[in-house]
Amino acid sequence: MSMENNLWQHILRVRNTSPLVHNITNYVVMNNTANSLLAIGASPIMAHAQSEVEDMVNISHSLVINIGTLDEYWEDAMLLAAKKANELQKPWVLDPVGAGATPYRDKAISSLLSLNPTVIRGNASEIIAIAKANKTVTKGVDSTAMSSEAVEAAKSLTEIHNSVICISGETDIVISKDQIICLKNGHPMMTKVTGLGCTASAIIGAFLGVTENKTEAVVSAMSLLSIAGELAAEKSTGPGSLQVNIIDKLYNMTQDEFSTHLKLSDHAS
Amino acid sequence: MSMENNLWQHILRVRNTSPLVHNITNYVVMNNTANSLLAIGASPIMAHAQSEVEDMVNISHSLVINIGTLDEYWEDAMLLAAKKANELQKPWVLDPVGAGATPYRDKAISSLLSLNPTVIRGNASEIIAIAKANKTVTKGVDSTAMSSEAVEAAKSLTEIHNSVICISGETDIVISKDQIICLKNGHPMMTKVTGLGCTASAIIGAFLGVTENKTEAVVSAMSLLSIAGELAAEKSTGPGSLQVNIIDKLYNMTQDEFSTHLKLSDHAS
Amino acid sequence: MSMENNLWQHILRVRNTSPLVHNITNYVVMNNTANSLLAIGASPIMAHAQSEVEDMVNISHSLVINIGTLDEYWEDAMLLAAKKANELQKPWVLDPVGAGATPYRDKAISSLLSLNPTVIRGNASEIIAIAKANKTVTKGVDSTAMSSEAVEAAKSLTEIHNSVICISGETDIVISKDQIICLKNGHPMMTKVTGLGCTASAIIGAFLGVTENKTEAVVSAMSLLSIAGELAAEKSTGPGSLQVNIIDKLYNMTQDEFSTHLKLSDHAS
Repeated sequence: MSMENNLWQHILRVRNTSPLVHNITNYVVMNNTANSLLAIGASPIMAHAQSEVEDMVNISHSLVINIGTLDEYWEDAMLLAAKKANELQKPWVLDPVGAGATPYRDKAISSLLSLNPTVIRGNASEIIAIAKANKTVTKGVDSTAMSSEAVEAAKSLTEIHNSVICISGETDIVISKDQIICLKNGHPMMTKVTGLGCTASAIIGAFLGVTENKTEAVVSAMSLLSIAGELAAEKSTGPGSLQVNIIDKLYNMTQDEFSTHLKLSDHAS
Repeated sequence: MSMENNLWQHILRVRNTSPLVHNITNYVVMNNTANSLLAIGASPIMAHAQSEVEDMVNISHSLVINIGTLDEYWEDAMLLAAKKANELQKPWVLDPVGAGATPYRDKAISSLLSLNPTVIRGNASEIIAIAKANKTVTKGVDSTAMSSEAVEAAKSLTEIHNSVICISGETDIVISKDQIICLKNGHPMMTKVTGLGCTASAIIGAFLGVTENKTEAVVSAMSLLSIAGELAAEKSTGPGSLQVNIIDKLYNMTQDEFSTHLKLSDHAS
Repeated sequence: MSMENNLWQHILRVRNTSPLVHNITNYVVMNNTANSLLAIGASPIMAHAQSEVEDMVNISHSLVINIGTLDEYWEDAMLLAAKKANELQKPWVLDPVGAGATPYRDKAISSLLSLNPTVIRGNASEIIAIAKANKTVTKGVDSTAMSSEAVEAAKSLTEIHNSVICISGETDIVISKDQIICLKNGHPMMTKVTGLGCTASAIIGAFLGVTENKTEAVVSAMSLLSIAGELAAEKSTGPGSLQVNIIDKLYNMTQDEFSTHLKLSDHAS
């Protein structure tokens, strides 16, 4: 598979060029997100003031918007930043944390979605929730293994918003207009560490800052993090040490470790 | 003591049913609180927007309010959420961080206290401060070892607000209308890790989500965390590794470890 | 060098007297900052409500203002707190995170700078940026190794604001009116852990709470943290474990470790 050869090159490019990633993210994960970005070689900025988010987008390579602990002020800041990113043609990621949990959250997601995020990353229930909340008609579920409700939701979102969608889970599924990539790395204990999904979204932002190929950016990020999680889990006695060891492994992952463990498959969309 | 037999059952119930715990808590501890809740098997939600806190309470099993880094906006959100919890008869915990430090903090605590929290957890000086600020008359201190000023303050709070009070310290004291339980687990180095008290309050929230017995919920939470701290301290070289190891131990604690280390005693109130 | 003998005494004084340090700091580093302060023996307070910051300054030994994730509300709270610190003649530290990145940030820094911080700590580019933004004329760079643009900027800030300036980097440079101290401790991997600069500023706050000698307070803090980083790096496999191990080492550093590793030199200013 030709994509595999490119992934490690993107990882090296992040390490060598330190893309500046502007994060408007949630309080729970800010420290880990910043540390994960630093560990892969990127430069994190965390800034949310309405008085400066546009200027921050201007100096950054990409933007990551994560609504985990949003409120009315932050929502407005997110919209300002996303609009600026579009105006400057900079890539941006939407992480719709908790989509479907409250009407307020769904309204905020709709506003952001209307700005056509470059990438959307969420778990299956979040992707389904945003497709439903935005009246994206899902076409019914057929019987093949991969065509789950979430994949159908993702396909419709891809069509309308031209976004690459990443559905995180035991298998990560990356969906663009003409391709579906499945990634089978990771470890079950990763679900017991808060905010690894948020970290994934932030890392996607870093890769969008170094490559024009949006799908490869997403696959690079997801494979790097989930292989790091797999290797880190081997030496962890619980989710506390796993959180620490993942950051170490993001930092010291070798090409050999990466290519030995990568479990990728693709399909026509 | 018959309670002892129930505690491990509550721990298993949290692991098996993953209660949803809505936290409106402080910035310092959000990551650790979320990770500790995940480690014991619960599902944390962190959300504070006035536009959604009531909806979040509605889908949660319990609510935890921690005023560590409160401000005027968050205070209003906390009041909205606590009122909703009462309306829906859902249990909620108040962690009055820094009670007595400023008039503003005491005023916020009074407003929350008037909504009769299911459980209040604080250290001795916080419990004394909230009793004083709310003109709860303490009846004078008698000479028995346990009847400290804090216990008297707790008793008066229990009487007025019908709350179970937990006074954290070298000995944790859990006070309800008819019972005083003392728990002598824990390790001195735990005082050097920020926010373990906040973590205790969050974990209490999880247990309130799986049992109607409020006192047992509090004792389960406090004993689980303090035994985890005790065991984690054995392999920690300082408070940095202790913070990590506690999360691991919350995750992988066995029944044998729990029952071997538990140091509980109770008294008529 | 006579200062060296005093540094360990200041470290012991923090451990023995637990100065109360009020932090108005950024979301990314709050947990680590609080844990680092606890590890060295200080008592952290994190509070930002406009309704209480003045009262918090009143009960604290020192104040630390870090603008990493500032917004309009926090900016006003910072100004209230800094004014109160001046009124009460309490020392305060300014950490001008991201100086030069946006006009908003520079305006906030100017307002804070006009209140004459006791200490300013930043990296070279931040110190240069605030000197430029505040039209401090740098006098031109001469050819000696240490007289870089940042040092000239720091000298002019020292002259105007009577602040001690700390320029963090591979060599930390502490500049007061009559002295320049260079500290060559630390480890390159420390740049991959988020917020160690912020931790440095917070620790400076703790030392300002126990000694009147502002320069020695800064040098104590910077040497303690960078030696801790050096020793912690020896047993770390990446920045995740480094973050944890630094906190452990701040907690258990011995006098022998400290004096064996200290690399200090001073110069007339």
